[in-house]
Amino acid sequence: MSKIDKVVLAYSGGLDTSVIVRWLQDTYDCEVVTFTADIGQGEEVEPARAKAEALGVKEIYIDDLREEFVRDYVFPMFRANTIYEGEYLLGTSIARPLIAKRLIEIANETGADAISHGATGKGNDQVRFELGAYALKPGIQVIAPWREWDLNSREKLMEYCEQHKIPVDFSGKKKKSPYSMDANLLHISYEGGVLEEPWAEAEEEMWRWSVSPEAAPDQPTYITLQYKGGDPVAIDGEEMSPAALLEKLNKLGGANGIGRLDIVENRYVGMKSRGCYETPGGTILLKAHRAIESITLDREVAHLKDELMPRYAKLIYNGYWWSPEREMLQAAIDQSQSVVNGEVRLKLYKGSVTAVGRRSEDSLFDERIATFEDDAGAYDQKDAEGFIKLNALRLRIAAGKGRDLI
Amino acid sequence: MSKIDKVVLAYSGGLDTSVIVRWLQDTYDCEVVTFTADIGQGEEVEPARAKAEALGVKEIYIDDLREEFVRDYVFPMFRANTIYEGEYLLGTSIARPLIAKRLIEIANETGADAISHGATGKGNDQVRFELGAYALKPGIQVIAPWREWDLNSREKLMEYCEQHKIPVDFSGKKKKSPYSMDANLLHISYEGGVLEEPWAEAEEEMWRWSVSPEAAPDQPTYITLQYKGGDPVAIDGEEMSPAALLEKLNKLGGANGIGRLDIVENRYVGMKSRGCYETPGGTILLKAHRAIESITLDREVAHLKDELMPRYAKLIYNGYWWSPEREMLQAAIDQSQSVVNGEVRLKLYKGSVTAVGRRSEDSLFDERIATFEDDAGAYDQKDAEGFIKLNALRLRIAAGKGRDLI
Amino acid sequence: MSKIDKVVLAYSGGLDTSVIVRWLQDTYDCEVVTFTADIGQGEEVEPARAKAEALGVKEIYIDDLREEFVRDYVFPMFRANTIYEGEYLLGTSIARPLIAKRLIEIANETGADAISHGATGKGNDQVRFELGAYALKPGIQVIAPWREWDLNSREKLMEYCEQHKIPVDFSGKKKKSPYSMDANLLHISYEGGVLEEPWAEAEEEMWRWSVSPEAAPDQPTYITLQYKGGDPVAIDGEEMSPAALLEKLNKLGGANGIGRLDIVENRYVGMKSRGCYETPGGTILLKAHRAIESITLDREVAHLKDELMPRYAKLIYNGYWWSPEREMLQAAIDQSQSVVNGEVRLKLYKGSVTAVGRRSEDSLFDERIATFEDDAGAYDQKDAEGFIKLNALRLRIAAGKGRDLI
Amino acid sequence: MSKIDKVVLAYSGGLDTSVIVRWLQDTYDCEVVTFTADIGQGEEVEPARAKAEALGVKEIYIDDLREEFVRDYVFPMFRANTIYEGEYLLGTSIARPLIAKRLIEIANETGADAISHGATGKGNDQVRFELGAYALKPGIQVIAPWREWDLNSREKLMEYCEQHKIPVDFSGKKKKSPYSMDANLLHISYEGGVLEEPWAEAEEEMWRWSVSPEAAPDQPTYITLQYKGGDPVAIDGEEMSPAALLEKLNKLGGANGIGRLDIVENRYVGMKSRGCYETPGGTILLKAHRAIESITLDREVAHLKDELMPRYAKLIYNGYWWSPEREMLQAAIDQSQSVVNGEVRLKLYKGSVTAVGRRSEDSLFDERIATFEDDAGAYDQKDAEGFIKLNALRLRIAAGKGRDLI
Repeated sequence: MSKIDKVVLAYSGGLDTSVIVRWLQDTYDCEVVTFTADIGQGEEVEPARAKAEALGVKEIYIDDLREEFVRDYVFPMFRANTIYEGEYLLGTSIARPLIAKRLIEIANETGADAISHGATGKGNDQVRFELGAYALKPGIQVIAPWREWDLNSREKLMEYCEQHKIPVDFSGKKKKSPYSMDANLLHISYEGGVLEEPWAEAEEEMWRWSVSPEAAPDQPTYITLQYKGGDPVAIDGEEMSPAALLEKLNKLGGANGIGRLDIVENRYVGMKSRGCYETPGGTILLKAHRAIESITLDREVAHLKDELMPRYAKLIYNGYWWSPEREMLQAAIDQSQSVVNGEVRLKLYKGSVTAVGRRSEDSLFDERIATFEDDAGAYDQKDAEGFIKLNALRLRIAAGKGRDLI
Repeated sequence: MSKIDKVVLAYSGGLDTSVIVRWLQDTYDCEVVTFTADIGQGEEVEPARAKAEALGVKEIYIDDLREEFVRDYVFPMFRANTIYEGEYLLGTSIARPLIAKRLIEIANETGADAISHGATGKGNDQVRFELGAYALKPGIQVIAPWREWDLNSREKLMEYCEQHKIPVDFSGKKKKSPYSMDANLLHISYEGGVLEEPWAEAEEEMWRWSVSPEAAPDQPTYITLQYKGGDPVAIDGEEMSPAALLEKLNKLGGANGIGRLDIVENRYVGMKSRGCYETPGGTILLKAHRAIESITLDREVAHLKDELMPRYAKLIYNGYWWSPEREMLQAAIDQSQSVVNGEVRLKLYKGSVTAVGRRSEDSLFDERIATFEDDAGAYDQKDAEGFIKLNALRLRIAAGKGRDLI
Repeated sequence: MSKIDKVVLAYSGGLDTSVIVRWLQDTYDCEVVTFTADIGQGEEVEPARAKAEALGVKEIYIDDLREEFVRDYVFPMFRANTIYEGEYLLGTSIARPLIAKRLIEIANETGADAISHGATGKGNDQVRFELGAYALKPGIQVIAPWREWDLNSREKLMEYCEQHKIPVDFSGKKKKSPYSMDANLLHISYEGGVLEEPWAEAEEEMWRWSVSPEAAPDQPTYITLQYKGGDPVAIDGEEMSPAALLEKLNKLGGANGIGRLDIVENRYVGMKSRGCYETPGGTILLKAHRAIESITLDREVAHLKDELMPRYAKLIYNGYWWSPEREMLQAAIDQSQSVVNGEVRLKLYKGSVTAVGRRSEDSLFDERIATFEDDAGAYDQKDAEGFIKLNALRLRIAAGKGRDLI
Repeated sequence: MSKIDKVVLAYSGGLDTSVIVRWLQDTYDCEVVTFTADIGQGEEVEPARAKAEALGVKEIYIDDLREEFVRDYVFPMFRANTIYEGEYLLGTSIARPLIAKRLIEIANETGADAISHGATGKGNDQVRFELGAYALKPGIQVIAPWREWDLNSREKLMEYCEQHKIPVDFSGKKKKSPYSMDANLLHISYEGGVLEEPWAEAEEEMWRWSVSPEAAPDQPTYITLQYKGGDPVAIDGEEMSPAALLEKLNKLGGANGIGRLDIVENRYVGMKSRGCYETPGGTILLKAHRAIESITLDREVAHLKDELMPRYAKLIYNGYWWSPEREMLQAAIDQSQSVVNGEVRLKLYKGSVTAVGRRSEDSLFDERIATFEDDAGAYDQKDAEGFIKLNALRLRIAAGKGRDLI
């Protein structure tokens, strides 16, 4: 690693990354540029400015990336009905490539030679940040303090604050929670604490975005979601920007106890890890997107998408958003979506979301053919005989030659 | 088609298949053997005997196949976390190969040269019955009356009954429902009627197995499911046979409003079709199986299973249970399941099922490594740097040579 | 089927399709439009005009489709390194969608309500023609004489000619060969005759396009092939149109005994079939395309292409060129090809083609990193330790918990 | 890393690994156990004993693993028709897991706490050795001298020899070749030297196992290969052990100029690398296995195998032979092979191998159905109409609703 003069840090304004600012300045004798993004985590980002200034930072970036996040990352991912390991909607994973991209853009603007982040050496986020950074700027240097320093406990961090006169209010923020949390417009996640025992049920007080199904209203809420080109564009006829729409769905979902998830997942770095997630809007979107696709997509296209999805999900989870293979898959997924238009009616009730109706001018549902009543010759039942006979031919030949299947 | 002397008919005892008995006798001048199976559809099968006798049937088979159905078909399918088109648990599809197998066994026992069934020429079931039959006995002949006759309305069927003196009580059974239904221990399905309009919400009175989420108890029900070799073997510590276990889960799920589904699916014969399903026990099983796998399966095995699943589901949906490719996939799936042991704690509440705990002596969850606390060196965070660097190498080389990802 | 007034026939000018002209006129009392295409089969197409006229045909289409065939069908297919069942380069399959498209265009131009072709009811070509036709014009009617008439032997066809005064020289064309053959710019195929015994070696005199490896020159031929955007554009620096380039490669390959293939393949309609093929240019193209991709494609993109290829090949073989799923896959394949530029040096010698050199301005081969010599720090070997350690982590945890792999 | 007392080294007897013996003794102050295996590399292994003794080694293992190598590694891999990146037969990759397994067995027998090998930090082999070792013995320590020391040139190694009195004849072995080579019963590989320029053609004198096609006999050689359960068991009717059979095929192939390959491949560690390979017997086996499968395997099984193959190949290439996902795939592959019996007749001629005949008692080739002649009703051509119509249905519906494919 060559001498570092300037480093761009993904800065939250919290204790950890504030320590990192000072630690970088001291350890690398370099200038630190902070970058704080609003991606819908639900905390003010502007206060980070004063904190950074107090730490002697001269170049401070504070960006509202909410629209870009939903439009260019969340929505494209949902076009694929993406789920990791059958359960996880990738709320954390999908935010990382945007942060990585912005870190690199700022490095380019400020002439920085390195980036830094506050992710630990055990998790997936370090991988996602760094793969993105390397893919977008191959000569960039990466400093991952958690992999380098020995401040591996809250006590040591606090001590470091005192020694280096880092204002203590930095440390207050997340004191209330025993969990490691991450939030953005798509979800909030919880790890650590009692969750490290996979048999233990998560405590009710842990959840922050949604009421419990038990506490949700006794009457269902019905909404209609409009789609255009595979993306949702309106709720109950009201057009909204991507971020506004997702925010609204989060409110609706959260109020109805929708989107809680409790899983053990497989990290890219090799261990299993327990995580709890709240993804109210995303849970609604997954159901709705499948429903609108169910009447507008060709069968084989839908099946191909289903077969490609797990590897697409894995790419995103593992940090390969910025890769040619993700872009190749995205080309296929996006190619399928121009016909995904129409609307879906959904019932939200005490933790569950159900599609109860779907319609589209691009519908391939053909009531004349599908009907159980007289179809006036739209479908010739006799065709089925030849269809079955020839599909069976290889099986019959095999059986005729003594191949046993039982 | 050569002369048919004896035909084995899948006989429900209802109007349609009773008409078929007589129609076969008249049209083919042949003897009819009836086969009626209890696969958990929730109706008595024994009454079919008297009805068949009244129609002059001499060889009557009435079998209780519930245990075989769940043990040899449902459970193997759930080992793969099988879902068709992201939603459907294949309740109808998975019962057909068992019926097909039994039809052929009876044909062999009775020396019949044909089989027959009451499935229409528009649906998937004809394909599933016939592919199975051909695969197991290539020389068998198949008679599909709905593809041959012109009795294509309820009125014509009733008329046929009168003309041929078929006792009218045959016709009473399903009068109450405007839907085409199918039931077995795994699910009950509804098609037709108002469902032919995909925008119309299913009426509450349609559903038969589950209370509505609204009507479900206000308190959650917790259960613990024990797994052995990938299959559930006990509920709350009480060992049960496969059928008894699934029946119990159906009760528990149904009482909590779990397992309703409303979709538009793609049939193998080429059209889209609206279906509503109740799969209370199956919905619980899917969640539980994923949860027990989440701590016992290797990551790459789990991912491989997820990538293979859609095509496995498609095989079953399309009627290829009895095929060498299904058996090849099953070999892979089953090979992975010997370690899938342990128990899952589940919360059932007003339509949703949540895994809240999971534990196993075969768990691969390593708390020493996964912990956010000091891990005493179990994991060396510095390894992550090399891991990321080499995973990034191809991306860095490409970027260094000017490949743009944005 | 409703009354047919006009039918467009894929007309070769040979015996079979000449009989079909008359048979259609007589059986359907309809007008016949003939369509004869030059797709590089190596026979004059213009003579078909006089023959059609002699049969009373008024609308006669004779098209030179060679450039379109290679540019829009052959080359896109080769971008995927497409091989069916590990061996077959799909020479027949890829020509059918073009014919189907042209038949439909002519039906639209002439107001015809049906198309017809000379493919039998046992083969794949009927499926390819008809799926394409239905996909492009869903209301079209299809007449497949071989599935309808009883002229199922050469003798009966000749008899029919005599009875209907069809000029006898129609019948002369393919008399010399005991094989069923099909040719276009990509290949020539042989089926039937002694090939129906899979143990019998094909006779030397069967092969028409290539000399035997034994008879090929004793000195190798070297050529260099230039690629642009995944397609070959020049040979030895000389730019050529797609058709001219493939024709040149056929000559070069054929002269060096390259491209013979003898296989048993699985037809879509369910049976196994023996086929022999000569694909001289295509065999060279496959090798060359893989070689140019080997230095220009990202690893994961290349692997993804390899995993998608078998199903892409199957789609084409089975006749689904004109389908949304093929177009979705094509979008992914094409997306990967913009960087596939450069040149490949090939050695052609007595039946084999070897890539002996490849270079590109878009090469990702990094000699500084790949070298066995001192790399001046371009690659840090120590990174490999972390890479291996974390890739091994899940395996070590499993082994540590007693999972045995042996 | 804790103190190492004893290390098992994969020892070739050559210069590099002899230096490693001394370097390990000096650097780690530990005892070295040498392990030298005959896996068909074509060099005497017994001389390694005296060399190891001269270096003070007390525990010396010299094993003939040729039969185990071919039976338990090469043949299972060929059951899948395994090729990496469309070209490479994995000759080096497949030998590594056996070496890794044996290293661990010896570590267990001798109570060693570490293993070591002579692979560099840039290549795939380090990954394969170490992943295997960790998977089989998770607590094992691994010493990879090339990643640790600074003896990164031949000169420095020679110097080290002198300084440490390592007998000079160790250094003589591979002086003749400018290439980095690896050999076993399946292949010999060449890297480095002029090959580092991908445009440069490999020199004729590089190749060691095969004559050039030009120098091969002017007459073809015909052989017949007998298969049982997916593995070859006899040549021209003469039964042979796995190793003997592969050795014989290497001779036959090499004499006919068969099996040379020149590619640029993608290494797991991230760079592209040029390699030349001679795999005479393997090239014959691949062709033969596909040919025997072509008449004995069901179509869908064959296609499933083709779709799984690339990822199976990737697993082996990347070093995951000893992994649960490889074993899961192997279960599927092996399940398909019991019917792969029969014989294949092959023509070997100047660099190419052609299957010219295949036959089997388990053949699914049905001449009655496949025939172009009258099939006496074995196949009803009219079935094709329904088959096509229903396969086209979704395409027709879509086209009818205005979906354009062009």
